[in-house]
Amino acid sequence: MQVYNAPLRDMRFVLNELHNDDGFGDLPGMEEFDTDLTDAVLEEAARFCRDILLPLNRSGDEEGCTHENGVVRTPKGFKDAYDQFTAAGWAALASDPEYGGQGLPEALNKLVEEMICSANLSFSLYPGLTHGGTTAIKGHGSDELKAKWLPKMISGEWSGTMCLTEPHCGTDLGMLRTKAEPRDDGSFKVTGNKIFISAGDHDLAENIVHLVLARLPDAPEGVKGISLFLVPKYMPKDDFSVGPANGVTCTAIEHKMGLKGSATCQMSFDESTGWLVGEPNKGMAAMFTMMNTERVSVGIQGLGVGEAAYQSAVWYAKDRVQGRALSGAKYPEQAADPIIVHPDVRRMLLTMRAYNEGCRALSAWVSRALDAQKHSPDPEVRQRAEEFTALMTPVVKALFTDLATESANLAVQVYGGHGYIRESGVEQYVRDARICQIYEGTNGIQALDLVGRKMGANFGRNLRSFFHPVSNFIEESKGEGPMQPMIEALEKAFGALQLSTATIAQKGMADPEEAGAAATDYLRLLGLVAMGYCFAKATKIAGLQIFFGSANGEEGDKAFYETKIKTATFFFERILPQATASFLAIRSGKKSMMAFTEDEF
Amino acid sequence: MQVYNAPLRDMRFVLNELHNDDGFGDLPGMEEFDTDLTDAVLEEAARFCRDILLPLNRSGDEEGCTHENGVVRTPKGFKDAYDQFTAAGWAALASDPEYGGQGLPEALNKLVEEMICSANLSFSLYPGLTHGGTTAIKGHGSDELKAKWLPKMISGEWSGTMCLTEPHCGTDLGMLRTKAEPRDDGSFKVTGNKIFISAGDHDLAENIVHLVLARLPDAPEGVKGISLFLVPKYMPKDDFSVGPANGVTCTAIEHKMGLKGSATCQMSFDESTGWLVGEPNKGMAAMFTMMNTERVSVGIQGLGVGEAAYQSAVWYAKDRVQGRALSGAKYPEQAADPIIVHPDVRRMLLTMRAYNEGCRALSAWVSRALDAQKHSPDPEVRQRAEEFTALMTPVVKALFTDLATESANLAVQVYGGHGYIRESGVEQYVRDARICQIYEGTNGIQALDLVGRKMGANFGRNLRSFFHPVSNFIEESKGEGPMQPMIEALEKAFGALQLSTATIAQKGMADPEEAGAAATDYLRLLGLVAMGYCFAKATKIAGLQIFFGSANGEEGDKAFYETKIKTATFFFERILPQATASFLAIRSGKKSMMAFTEDEF
Repeated sequence: MQVYNAPLRDMRFVLNELHNDDGFGDLPGMEEFDTDLTDAVLEEAARFCRDILLPLNRSGDEEGCTHENGVVRTPKGFKDAYDQFTAAGWAALASDPEYGGQGLPEALNKLVEEMICSANLSFSLYPGLTHGGTTAIKGHGSDELKAKWLPKMISGEWSGTMCLTEPHCGTDLGMLRTKAEPRDDGSFKVTGNKIFISAGDHDLAENIVHLVLARLPDAPEGVKGISLFLVPKYMPKDDFSVGPANGVTCTAIEHKMGLKGSATCQMSFDESTGWLVGEPNKGMAAMFTMMNTERVSVGIQGLGVGEAAYQSAVWYAKDRVQGRALSGAKYPEQAADPIIVHPDVRRMLLTMRAYNEGCRALSAWVSRALDAQKHSPDPEVRQRAEEFTALMTPVVKALFTDLATESANLAVQVYGGHGYIRESGVEQYVRDARICQIYEGTNGIQALDLVGRKMGANFGRNLRSFFHPVSNFIEESKGEGPMQPMIEALEKAFGALQLSTATIAQKGMADPEEAGAAATDYLRLLGLVAMGYCFAKATKIAGLQIFFGSANGEEGDKAFYETKIKTATFFFERILPQATASFLAIRSGKKSMMAFTEDEF
Repeated sequence: MQVYNAPLRDMRFVLNELHNDDGFGDLPGMEEFDTDLTDAVLEEAARFCRDILLPLNRSGDEEGCTHENGVVRTPKGFKDAYDQFTAAGWAALASDPEYGGQGLPEALNKLVEEMICSANLSFSLYPGLTHGGTTAIKGHGSDELKAKWLPKMISGEWSGTMCLTEPHCGTDLGMLRTKAEPRDDGSFKVTGNKIFISAGDHDLAENIVHLVLARLPDAPEGVKGISLFLVPKYMPKDDFSVGPANGVTCTAIEHKMGLKGSATCQMSFDESTGWLVGEPNKGMAAMFTMMNTERVSVGIQGLGVGEAAYQSAVWYAKDRVQGRALSGAKYPEQAADPIIVHPDVRRMLLTMRAYNEGCRALSAWVSRALDAQKHSPDPEVRQRAEEFTALMTPVVKALFTDLATESANLAVQVYGGHGYIRESGVEQYVRDARICQIYEGTNGIQALDLVGRKMGANFGRNLRSFFHPVSNFIEESKGEGPMQPMIEALEKAFGALQLSTATIAQKGMADPEEAGAAATDYLRLLGLVAMGYCFAKATKIAGLQIFFGSANGEEGDKAFYETKIKTATFFFERILPQATASFLAIRSGKKSMMAFTEDEF
């Protein structure tokens, strides 16, 4: 059974308690969002996700999208849910108030995103892609484009897409062939074929605004000759109501492993009218604006699915009675004990739980940096926040989604044979989560981005924006009695990370393949240290709260803090040891992989 | 694209070269199976799997099985393939010649099984379950039952099932409710409902022989009151041709994540006539005979899927051009390089490859023990072989299938976005492989079987049957120059395994939950050491062959041995380090899991 209630207490913890000393300020620039307001938003979002989106998750998977006579339809109930979603203003949550958005801090918005993804990942794609599109237009479009297009997109009346991939090129966009020819009126004729376009066509919004990568006639070869165009499905009339069709058609939808409620489209642009977004031949920069936003969001998608998988598995582990506890019957009055009594079942549940809480804590930190980057009055803070988000974007994307697939698979394992049956709902999490490791840049590409670009960039300042807080925390926490084992474990893993960083920097300078060979393990190692840091901080805060009494006196708070410390302990004892395996793998270098000739595979 | 050609050279290596000194003898008791004959069998099986079974794999997944008007139909082509399969004698391969079988050694048979599972896992279930059934009848049935039923089943004319699970009980069979009431003629009336019955009904064979766990009227409660019955779909006439229906109906088939070409049935037995197999109330023993055979086979299923996933990924990595090698263009004349040039893609491919070769080598060792157990003239060898297979059965089942899921997921990752599309065929491997971690006892149950039963059984002789060869090999290999790093790594991992064994034995004695908390990590650790031992042995043999020239002078042999050493090196540098993480997790004990109250989840 798919079970989901937003983990509101933990969300408030990572939002209000965990990162207050991170130097990015107090919800920077967002002072009007006090605790009452953020609590209200979280609670309302939780209700919407549970009552409206969750019930459509499995039916959406069973029914899927259809493509008949050129029309793409989403599963039953999606249109109605989308209307309620936009009417309630959820689509406009994080967007600029100048264009009708509600200007919510990312620190809050990402928590709402997580809930939406937990409840219905397929649904989340429709508003999610729109948000990516508005970010690109806002960042790179002319004032005219912004004034015209953003309000309709931000309200959700019109939705958006990112049209990058073509059949022969995904990762290597330099090979793309879609063409854009200038017209006299300043617009362009866009012609070409795109594949894997999420939300490329559907029946939720009255118009769809495609952001399309294409080449101008005189463009240089490769990635330096790519420009970004805004191409609507229907041309707008003068009053920006929906006008005639614009040569944009969905030629097919993909049959996929999962995410079946989200229409993944093959799109054809046939002399479609479009407008340049940003400078000619600078499309990759604009695309990366969109992409970086999306990459963090894809990480959140993973976390969302991981949380739903965890909750569904906990429900089953308490419900399913089978066998007896190894230490003797726990419920002698029943025919058998619930399977949650077993250490190995708990190992699986707590692995998911630790992954989710670790990712949520890390994502809250990154979200605060996203806000600081935009809103902090202090240029030094803005720069540090930018460096930190640059470093963490690939980590959030790849780490969270790798762990989501692990979590979803663990949930199926908790269900046993019943988990393999579609009606249980948990195998859907495995199929849905799987795409998150791939789209918006495969996780291998994220790892290369981390070691190849982000690690060494800005004279190492990106890395220091993360290393400094960690080493400071370790130093100041030494000698604090009950936390010593945690601090020692964190220090050891952090030492392995520092050593690996030095090794990769040194070897990778001379031979980029050495960096490539270390990339995936390095990303995991860094992610483990980051989660470990968050858990250690959380333990410290929780310990103080238990000792001195809860700051806000909320009922049940002591129980929350005690459980937080237990989860952190599990993380340090059972998850962090993975760091050693990554460290040893990194140290071994590229040799064992590159020794193979192609024929030997 | 689903690509599969049986890895014949590696199969011959593990069959003829790797384990000759394991003390189980030279294909014990099976001297007539010389290299010419085994080569011929392997080649013919490879052809059958590639030409007949592989082409039905994806179509079978798309079409699935159907259940209409009480009739279960397998996907198009399955019936024809099954007819060819039985006509060619593949169904009878490993069965007793006394009843029409071909009496092939398991060492050979398991390789053929692997091929069938690589080509079409769904198809493999139909003959696979029959084989499990014949094993139980042969081991526990009366002479009359054997003489009557085995020939039809072994030929494949009639197929078999194992009917264990009921809606409320899977792992805990003590709770089952199906009843068997004695009739005057010595037969029984069997009544009850079973779920998750693989091959429970279908259109491949003219009759289906169900082996059903049920309770006699006066049976004691729990697992001590379970008996095993043979219940046919149709009653046989006197001449053992197919007679009238026997109250056995398939009431529904399951909608599953994968394995869609295999009908998973809900079965209803309504006063169906059956015969007792073995003693009353001793059904669990008979069931375990069947189950242990099946558990090794499920491990092989995982290996089969892992190999197909690897080959399909290699094909794509060579075919897909995208971007350039990090060290500069490898194919400057093309628009881009194939993605196999990238270290991270190779990391994924070689991880799969190392898993597959490691599992194949280990499975060949276990298969030889299965043969020795049956055929060795030396009672001491028979006993040692039995102890070794008892120990390794849960390891083969759980380790191979966990790694299969990892491999299948890696294959999807190599394909990127295309891997998520059903047409690519690789996401099917993820969905198909997933069940192998669950059925015939979840992998958590396997781990408990290992630490709770197998580890301490026979005064530790089970464990010694594995530990002795490993420690002897380490001792005798010390000081052999080029292999030193491998031997040291193996020694270290083996040391961690020994230490963990002692810890679990000691702590688990006082508190079985401590053993339960360590179980999964212990199984992985033992599996890694076992694969490492096989790889180190393989390296030694390969090194000698390269140095002294190939023993059998086969063309391409030097290349094979060189590649084997490279794969082994990759295993030691990149995979074996996982052992440290497992070791640390085991050492941390149960505390962090059992500290949680049920409410805290």
